Amino acid sequence: MNAPAFQRYRLIVEYDGTPFHGWQLQPETRTVQGEIEAVLARITEAPRRVIGSGRTDTGVHATGQVAAVDLPPKWEAAALQKALNALLPREIRVREVHLAPPRFHPRYDAVARSYRYQVGTTLEAGSPFHRRWCWDLSEAPPDRDLLQAGAALIAGDRSFARFAKSGQPARGDRCRVASAAWEPCPEIGISFRITANRYLHHMVRYLVGTMIAVGRGERPLDELAALLENDRSPLVTSPPAPARGLFLERVEYPQKSFEPPPPNEGESAP
Amino acid sequence: MNAPAFQRYRLIVEYDGTPFHGWQLQPETRTVQGEIEAVLARITEAPRRVIGSGRTDTGVHATGQVAAVDLPPKWEAAALQKALNALLPREIRVREVHLAPPRFHPRYDAVARSYRYQVGTTLEAGSPFHRRWCWDLSEAPPDRDLLQAGAALIAGDRSFARFAKSGQPARGDRCRVASAAWEPCPEIGISFRITANRYLHHMVRYLVGTMIAVGRGERPLDELAALLENDRSPLVTSPPAPARGLFLERVEYPQKSFEPPPPNEGESAP
Repeated sequence: MNAPAFQRYRLIVEYDGTPFHGWQLQPETRTVQGEIEAVLARITEAPRRVIGSGRTDTGVHATGQVAAVDLPPKWEAAALQKALNALLPREIRVREVHLAPPRFHPRYDAVARSYRYQVGTTLEAGSPFHRRWCWDLSEAPPDRDLLQAGAALIAGDRSFARFAKSGQPARGDRCRVASAAWEPCPEIGISFRITANRYLHHMVRYLVGTMIAVGRGERPLDELAALLENDRSPLVTSPPAPARGLFLERVEYPQKSFEPPPPNEGESAP
Repeated sequence: MNAPAFQRYRLIVEYDGTPFHGWQLQPETRTVQGEIEAVLARITEAPRRVIGSGRTDTGVHATGQVAAVDLPPKWEAAALQKALNALLPREIRVREVHLAPPRFHPRYDAVARSYRYQVGTTLEAGSPFHRRWCWDLSEAPPDRDLLQAGAALIAGDRSFARFAKSGQPARGDRCRVASAAWEPCPEIGISFRITANRYLHHMVRYLVGTMIAVGRGERPLDELAALLENDRSPLVTSPPAPARGLFLERVEYPQKSFEPPPPNEGESAP
């Protein structure tokens, strides 16, 4: 039996999305995936393909994006992390590196993803040291009870077709939202946290934009309810909340995604 | 008596210094003063000169820079603040606008300036959401007792000639340091706060760089003491701490700088 030519690594990555055109590799454009692949190519002296748990849009941040890459097995996890962080731009940091089984797939294996959306309601939220990472509404803060009433309508297994920038007909428009609630956010004000098995395009930003309109008394809570019921009314969502308040916070996997493969699997034929 | 043609305004300004080549106006370069003057010219439809309390270097931040500008007296302070913040880049915010007496001068009137220097000692300090604004030493944090022992040597009226990038012979090298101490800094770790009547070029960064070297056991406390005594030893300071951890926090003025001039002063001749 030969030693395997590659070891799969699981990376947990955080980034300030401000200077990037999202996660996904694009030619002639700065993206988070592109920056990580460039550094991996440099330190391992060969082109490398990184797979993420999912795209994040232009200007969206992450504290817990998950990615995988195959490298020659000589790389020790801690040494790889250190080498990556030494060369990555300061807006990207690899928080953790773990050895992963060869079949681990950050996108297909994920069972839940959590996003957080920060809304500024304090004087400090408008400072240059905070507003990079929130939607600053300190001049006309929304009513927290109305926000919470809106969030309470969201959980469940339902169509979010009305809260999507564009259709994804191949996979349908149903999402299972396990939880959705507003909570205090130190210094900045409040944040909305949502956990679901999947999301439609711009879904969290449409949900937040519409809840904020309700919370500011610009439209009744009933309209949010009607949109979530996906009824045939001509109602539309409010504009999506700006990207800069949104963070991909956590991606969850079943335990088996982290365990070694059963005996024989992954071994070379004799 | 004619109404005065100009009203002086006092601005309190905060900025993320990362994208700027310091405070001071320079041709062909983005500076904080330059950005504010450009916006003032646009909203008041004439060139305006802004005077700051002092320069900050490339990459240095401020939470309490003070500036003055003369404008036609029709401008109401709150309206001016709102107009400025609507057009300034997101890295600059005008925190406050006040009417000022015509003789108020942000630099000459200042009696004390306080700086804060943030040092990262926590895991979080290295994240993209904090390291923009601190010197991240979380991999080898300095000893806090040694840092505090170093800071305790600094206060007093003394020459700081050894802690200056370049000489300023015209004004001498004595500074009256009223206080200097380390304190906890939420999430990031620790910060050094210093208040003095004036500073030599890069003085705070040389002080922090040398204290950190002491705190990490790289040189004895005695050497810091000898440098502060400005003795004839061949010792030199440690390299200056990086700009990104430094904040101009507060500028203090005597009460009379904010009071209206005595009767007759500033009025036109009959």
